[in-house]
Amino acid sequence: MLRFSTAGESHGKGLIAFIEGIPAGLKVDIEEINSELARRQRGFGRGQRMKIETDTAEIISGVRHKRTLGSPITLFIENKDFQNWIPAMSPILDEVSKNSLTNPRPGHADLAGLMKYGVKDFRDILERASARETAAKVAIGAVCKIFLKEFGINVRSFILQIGNVTAKIKSFDGEKIWCDTESSVVRCPDKAAEKEMIKLIEKAASNGDTLGGKLAILVSNVVAGLGSHTQWDLKLDGKLAQSLIAIQAFKSVEFGEGTNFAELPGSLAHDEIFHDKKNGFYRKTNHAGGIEGGMTNGEPIFITCVLKPIPSLVRPLRSVDIFTKKPVKAEAVRSDICVVPAAGIVAEAAVSIEIAKALIEQFGPVCMKDIKNNYNLYVKRIKNI
Amino acid sequence: MLRFSTAGESHGKGLIAFIEGIPAGLKVDIEEINSELARRQRGFGRGQRMKIETDTAEIISGVRHKRTLGSPITLFIENKDFQNWIPAMSPILDEVSKNSLTNPRPGHADLAGLMKYGVKDFRDILERASARETAAKVAIGAVCKIFLKEFGINVRSFILQIGNVTAKIKSFDGEKIWCDTESSVVRCPDKAAEKEMIKLIEKAASNGDTLGGKLAILVSNVVAGLGSHTQWDLKLDGKLAQSLIAIQAFKSVEFGEGTNFAELPGSLAHDEIFHDKKNGFYRKTNHAGGIEGGMTNGEPIFITCVLKPIPSLVRPLRSVDIFTKKPVKAEAVRSDICVVPAAGIVAEAAVSIEIAKALIEQFGPVCMKDIKNNYNLYVKRIKNI
Amino acid sequence: MLRFSTAGESHGKGLIAFIEGIPAGLKVDIEEINSELARRQRGFGRGQRMKIETDTAEIISGVRHKRTLGSPITLFIENKDFQNWIPAMSPILDEVSKNSLTNPRPGHADLAGLMKYGVKDFRDILERASARETAAKVAIGAVCKIFLKEFGINVRSFILQIGNVTAKIKSFDGEKIWCDTESSVVRCPDKAAEKEMIKLIEKAASNGDTLGGKLAILVSNVVAGLGSHTQWDLKLDGKLAQSLIAIQAFKSVEFGEGTNFAELPGSLAHDEIFHDKKNGFYRKTNHAGGIEGGMTNGEPIFITCVLKPIPSLVRPLRSVDIFTKKPVKAEAVRSDICVVPAAGIVAEAAVSIEIAKALIEQFGPVCMKDIKNNYNLYVKRIKNI
Amino acid sequence: MLRFSTAGESHGKGLIAFIEGIPAGLKVDIEEINSELARRQRGFGRGQRMKIETDTAEIISGVRHKRTLGSPITLFIENKDFQNWIPAMSPILDEVSKNSLTNPRPGHADLAGLMKYGVKDFRDILERASARETAAKVAIGAVCKIFLKEFGINVRSFILQIGNVTAKIKSFDGEKIWCDTESSVVRCPDKAAEKEMIKLIEKAASNGDTLGGKLAILVSNVVAGLGSHTQWDLKLDGKLAQSLIAIQAFKSVEFGEGTNFAELPGSLAHDEIFHDKKNGFYRKTNHAGGIEGGMTNGEPIFITCVLKPIPSLVRPLRSVDIFTKKPVKAEAVRSDICVVPAAGIVAEAAVSIEIAKALIEQFGPVCMKDIKNNYNLYVKRIKNI
Repeated sequence: MLRFSTAGESHGKGLIAFIEGIPAGLKVDIEEINSELARRQRGFGRGQRMKIETDTAEIISGVRHKRTLGSPITLFIENKDFQNWIPAMSPILDEVSKNSLTNPRPGHADLAGLMKYGVKDFRDILERASARETAAKVAIGAVCKIFLKEFGINVRSFILQIGNVTAKIKSFDGEKIWCDTESSVVRCPDKAAEKEMIKLIEKAASNGDTLGGKLAILVSNVVAGLGSHTQWDLKLDGKLAQSLIAIQAFKSVEFGEGTNFAELPGSLAHDEIFHDKKNGFYRKTNHAGGIEGGMTNGEPIFITCVLKPIPSLVRPLRSVDIFTKKPVKAEAVRSDICVVPAAGIVAEAAVSIEIAKALIEQFGPVCMKDIKNNYNLYVKRIKNI
Repeated sequence: MLRFSTAGESHGKGLIAFIEGIPAGLKVDIEEINSELARRQRGFGRGQRMKIETDTAEIISGVRHKRTLGSPITLFIENKDFQNWIPAMSPILDEVSKNSLTNPRPGHADLAGLMKYGVKDFRDILERASARETAAKVAIGAVCKIFLKEFGINVRSFILQIGNVTAKIKSFDGEKIWCDTESSVVRCPDKAAEKEMIKLIEKAASNGDTLGGKLAILVSNVVAGLGSHTQWDLKLDGKLAQSLIAIQAFKSVEFGEGTNFAELPGSLAHDEIFHDKKNGFYRKTNHAGGIEGGMTNGEPIFITCVLKPIPSLVRPLRSVDIFTKKPVKAEAVRSDICVVPAAGIVAEAAVSIEIAKALIEQFGPVCMKDIKNNYNLYVKRIKNI
Repeated sequence: MLRFSTAGESHGKGLIAFIEGIPAGLKVDIEEINSELARRQRGFGRGQRMKIETDTAEIISGVRHKRTLGSPITLFIENKDFQNWIPAMSPILDEVSKNSLTNPRPGHADLAGLMKYGVKDFRDILERASARETAAKVAIGAVCKIFLKEFGINVRSFILQIGNVTAKIKSFDGEKIWCDTESSVVRCPDKAAEKEMIKLIEKAASNGDTLGGKLAILVSNVVAGLGSHTQWDLKLDGKLAQSLIAIQAFKSVEFGEGTNFAELPGSLAHDEIFHDKKNGFYRKTNHAGGIEGGMTNGEPIFITCVLKPIPSLVRPLRSVDIFTKKPVKAEAVRSDICVVPAAGIVAEAAVSIEIAKALIEQFGPVCMKDIKNNYNLYVKRIKNI
Repeated sequence: MLRFSTAGESHGKGLIAFIEGIPAGLKVDIEEINSELARRQRGFGRGQRMKIETDTAEIISGVRHKRTLGSPITLFIENKDFQNWIPAMSPILDEVSKNSLTNPRPGHADLAGLMKYGVKDFRDILERASARETAAKVAIGAVCKIFLKEFGINVRSFILQIGNVTAKIKSFDGEKIWCDTESSVVRCPDKAAEKEMIKLIEKAASNGDTLGGKLAILVSNVVAGLGSHTQWDLKLDGKLAQSLIAIQAFKSVEFGEGTNFAELPGSLAHDEIFHDKKNGFYRKTNHAGGIEGGMTNGEPIFITCVLKPIPSLVRPLRSVDIFTKKPVKAEAVRSDICVVPAAGIVAEAAVSIEIAKALIEQFGPVCMKDIKNNYNLYVKRIKNI
C-alpha cells in the first residue's frame, strides 16, 4: 500500500514530502527529483517568488546509497527565506506584534478556514492552503515517476488552453509533441497558440488580472487491468479524479472525450475492439481515455483538467473585515498571473502517484525484483489470452 | 467514520448495501428508502428491465423499531428474477452447460476485467460491473439523505443536457425548479428542452442507439467548513469527485463554473465577500460552486457531470472473440436508451454519502442528539464571528 | 487489500459476513464454511441456544459456480428464530409494548453503550455487542482458511487452560495433537486435563457460575516475510493482536513465550539461526512465536490468549436500574458456562483473516493463478539466498 | 481522524515524527516534547548511546506561535552523530567500501527482513527496525499527552517486573506511586523491588546478558464511551493492543486482570455496578481494566505488557553467514542491558495516541474550543442519565 502526505506551511521552515510503500531497491537520484521541482517552477506568467527561489529536496529517510530501503521516504524542501519570517511564522516564539490578516480573499480557503478553525488571523489558514504545498506533491510524484519508468510508463502533460486561446493538437504519437511542450514557456506544443497565450498573459499582467486554463495529462504504456470494477473506491478513474481535484485551483476533471460524451451517440462513443498478432487486443480510437469499468484497458490514459484563474490579485476583490464587518479590499498579494503551465507538472505528480499506487497494490510492495517479476508474469499472461 | 460498500451481482440473489457510522437514534422509514429506489427506476429512455422490476429494500441489520442503533446497517435488494438465473448465476452449483460470453462489449469492463481476472466468460465481470449496482448505492444514499434532512440539507439533481439538447435554467431559487424536475420524465425543469429530449430519445431508440448527457447536483443549506484544506485527501471536492466518477458511465465532474473557468479572468471568476446582519458573511455569486480551499463556504454546492451514452447497444459494435480471435459483434443486450435522468438519482446518492461522511467526521459519530448539539454549537460559533 | 466487516444483531434477521479482496478463482464450497460454523457451535459448556440452532451460511454475492469472482463476498447466516422476535427486534414496526432492559450486566457493553449511544433500553446495545457476532467472523475466517489452504497454511487452535486446570502439551509436531483436539469436547489434546476441565465445567454449571480459560493458536507452514518492520501499523503481530483482542471476552494476547519473556535472560530467549541444505535457514527453538521485527520468520506462528469467564450469569451480579438508580440484580440470561473451546474457532478465524490479508497484500489481489505464481517466485527467491 | 507515522533510520539524518488531525489551537510547548524524549532516555540499564545523545525535537510544521494550526505537525529529531555515518548511511552517495552485515542477529528483523526485501546487507533492515524509532513515537505521544491534559486525562506507566524480580503495588490511588516511579531509576515504585532490579541488571551486565520485564500503563480520568462495540476495528482495546504490540520487543498485552481471568470464576471476575449522587454509576473493582465491550466504562484503563530481553548481546548468539552459509556469531552490538523502564515511556506514547484518536473521532477534529464544547456536552449528558 502506497501512502503519502505532505506537511509544511508556505513561509514556514520548509515542506515535508512523505511517501511510504515504494518497494526496496529502486534507484533514486536526487537530481531527478530536483529536476521535477525545477519544472514546476518554470512557466511564463509566474510571479517573483518563483524567480528568487530554486527548490531543492533533501532526502531525510528511506534511501541509502541511492537505493530505496522499503522504509518511509521523507523529503525536505527548505524555505530558504525562513529567517525573514521569524517571528511571524515561528513555531516556538510567542506572537510579538499584531499583524493579523483579517480581510479574506475570495476564491481562497481564507474565510471558510477562518470560520471553521476559529482563528483570528487567516494567515493560520493560507499558509497551509497555499499552492506552495504542490512543491511537496511534485517531489512525491517525482519518486513515483522514477518508479513508473521501471515499467516503461510515462506520465506527461501539456497545456490545451489559457484564457480563450485554445491549442490545436493533431496527434500524440511520437516524441515531437513532448519536445515541443518542454521547450515551450507555456508548455503548449502548438506554436501558434503559444504565441497568443503569451500575449494574453502579458495583457492580464498589465491589467492586474490572472488567467486560468485547461491542461491534458497522458499516461502512455500502461498495462491493462489496473484498478477494479468491484467496488466504488477501487475504481482507478475515481481515484485519479480525487487526486486531481484535490490540487489547488483544479475545478474540473474529464476522462477521454469528457464533456463531449454528452453529445456523442453510443454508436460513435466507444472504442471498438480489434486483435492482431503483434498488438493482441487493441483499439483504433481512445474515446474512453484508457479506462473502462474503472480499469485501465491498455490504451493511454487521457485526462483533461480546468483550473480557475488564481484568486490572489494585484487589484484585489471586495471583501469584509472579519472584526469590523466593514467592506474592505481583500489582502493584495504579489501574485502569479497564470499557473496553468506549472500546474501540468503538479497534475503529472498526482497522476503518477495513483498509477504507482495501483501497480504496487496489484504487483506487491516488497522489492523491485519481485514487483518486476510479478508484473512480467502478468503481462505475459494477459498477452497470451 | 462513515464507511459503506455494496455487494452483489446484477443477476445474482440480490444486492447488498452496507453502511456503518450513521449515529444512533436516526428515524429511518423503509418507505423513504424505497421511494429513492423508485426514483432511480423512472425516466424516459429506460429499457424493459426497469418496467418489470420494482426494487424494494429490506433492512437486515442496524435498525430497530425504525431507529438506527449505531451498528452497521445492511439493506438487501432482492433480485426477484433470480430463480430464472439458476444455474447460470448459482453460487453453489457446478457449471452445467457452457454458455460463456466471449465477445466483449466496447465501453464496458468486459475486456479489461476478463484479462485482469483471468476468467473465460465475461459474465464473471459484467455481473458486478453492471450499473445495476447503483441501486445499492441509491439505498445507501437514501439513508444519508434522511440523515442530512435532520440538518436541513437537501441534495437534488436535474438534467442539463441529453445529446445535443441543452436546458436553459434561469434560477435555482425557490422550489419550482425542483417540482418541475420531479414531474418531468427526463428530470429536466425546462419544458421546451424536455420535449426535444424526448424526441431525441425516441429517435435514438428507433436507431438502436443510445444517448449520454449532462446533469447537475445542487446541495443547499450546507454549513461552511466541511472538508479541510490541510491534506490532499481531506478536501471535500476531491472526495466528491471520486465518489461521482466512480459511478458507472460518469466521465467528467465540474465544480461551480467548471470548464468555464478556463476563460474567466481572475477579476470575474471569484465570489466577492459581503456581510450583513441577517446573513452574516455571504456571496452574491457562486462561481466556486460552494467549495473554496477544499471546504464548503456556506453557499450551495453545485456540481455538473457528463455521462457517456451507455455502451450496451441493440446494434452492437465490433469486437473480437476471446478464444478464436476472430472479429465478431459484441454481445447484444436489451438495453436502456438513455440513463441520464436516472443517473441524477445515483449522483444525489454519491454526493449525499460524502456530505454525511463530512458531517459525521466533524460533529461526531455517536447519536443524533449529540451530533445535533455539536452541530448547533458550531453553527452558532461561526455565525458570531 | 482484504477488507471485512460483520453486521447484524443477535436476535435480528440474521448476521451478515462481508469480505472483499479475495482473489478471483478460489474454489469455495459452502460446506467448508458450514463446517466451521458447526465447529464454533460445539464444545462442552455451551448453553441451550447452541443446541437448538445449527448455523448455516448462504452465499449472497461474490461466488459463482463455487468460484470466487473477485467481487465482494457476502454471506448470510439466518436467525431461524426471528419470527419469535417480532416485534421486539423488528426494524420496520414501531415499538409496541415497553419491555426495556434497564439493569445492565457487569462485564458487558451494556452500561457503557447505553451511556454513549443515549438509548433507554440496553437491548439496543447488547444485540450487537453479543458474541453471537462471532458466527459471522467465523464465516469470514472460513473463506480465508480455504484461501490459506491453497498455500499449505494451516491455522489451528487448542485449549490450554480452563479455570485452574492446565493442559500439558509435549509437542506440536505431527497430526496427533490436532486429531486429539478435534475429538475432545473441550478441544484439549491432553486427555487427563480434559477430564478435569469437564468436571470443572459441570461444577460451575451447578453453581450458576462461568469459566474462562486460555487457548493457543498455531499457524504452520507460513512463509517468512509477511508483515513489515517499516511502520507501526504494518507489523503483523500488531495486527494479529488487534484482531484477537477485538473478539468478545478476549483479555490478553501473547506471542511465543509471551509473559515468560519477563524472566528469560537474553542469552536464552532468542532463536539461534542455523542453515542446512534441506531447510535453508531454520531455528531449533521458537521462543519468538514465529514473528521477529513484525514479520514472520518462517517458523510457526504461536499465540496464546486468555478469555474472561462470560459475564452473563444465571445468578446475576449486582447492578443499578438505569432509571430508578436503585440497586437491582443484573439481567439474568440463560447462558453458556464456558465458551473457551468455541472461542478457539473464533481465534482461528481472526488469525486466518490477518494472514490472508498479509498474503494478498504481498502477492497481489487479482486471481488465484497470479497470486500463486507470485508466491512461488518469492518462495524460490528466498530459498535461494 | 488522527493519523501518524514515523520515518527515519537509526543512524541516518534523523527521525521524523508525523501527526495530523490534532485540532487547531492546542498550546504546544517544545519543552514538554523534549521532556518526554528525555524520560525515554533515562533508566538504569541503558547502554552508551543513551548517555552520549540528548534527543531534542524541532517543530517543522503545523505549529505557529506555540499553537497548533490544524495542519499536519512534523517533528524532526536530528541524529547529531550523522556526520560520522557518511558514507555508510548517505542517501546520495554511492556505496564505497564493502562493509556489509551478513551475520543476522536472532530475535531481530535482520534475517526475515533480509530475505523479504532482497537486500545483501542487513543494515538496510536494522536501521529502520531498530528501537531507535521509538523516539519518534514518543515525540508523537508527547503531543497527544499535551492534548489529553486538556481533558484531564493522564497516561502513566510503571515497571512491575524485571527478570524474576516482581514489584508489590498496593494501590494506584493518589500521586505517591507516580512520584516514586518518576524518581526511581528503574521506574518502579516499590523501593525494595527497585533495589533487587538494579542488582539483577548489574549482574546481567557483567554476564554480557540482557533482561526483559513487565510494565503497567494506567490511564486515569478517561470518560466512558470511547471506542465502540459495533465493529471489530472500532473496539478500543483492539486498537490499544495493536499499538502496544507494534512496539519493538513487546510480546504480550493484557487488559485488567489479563491472564488471571483464566482462573477467576464469572462470579468474581466482573465489576459490579453501583450508583451514588456524587459519582453517578461507578464500580468498586476494576477487573476489566476500564474497558467493556470495546468501550471505556469510566474506570481507569489498566494494561500490562511483557517485553522480551533485547536480542542485541555483547556475547552474541549463534547465527549463519548469509553468503557462506557457515555458522558464525551474530553481529555483536554495544547494547542496552535492560530497556524495560524506558519502554514504559514508549507504551505511554502508544496509548496516548490511541486515546487521543478516540477522543478526536468522537468529539471532532476541528479546534480546541469546539472539541471541548462537544466533550463537555457529552459528559454532562451521560452524567444526567
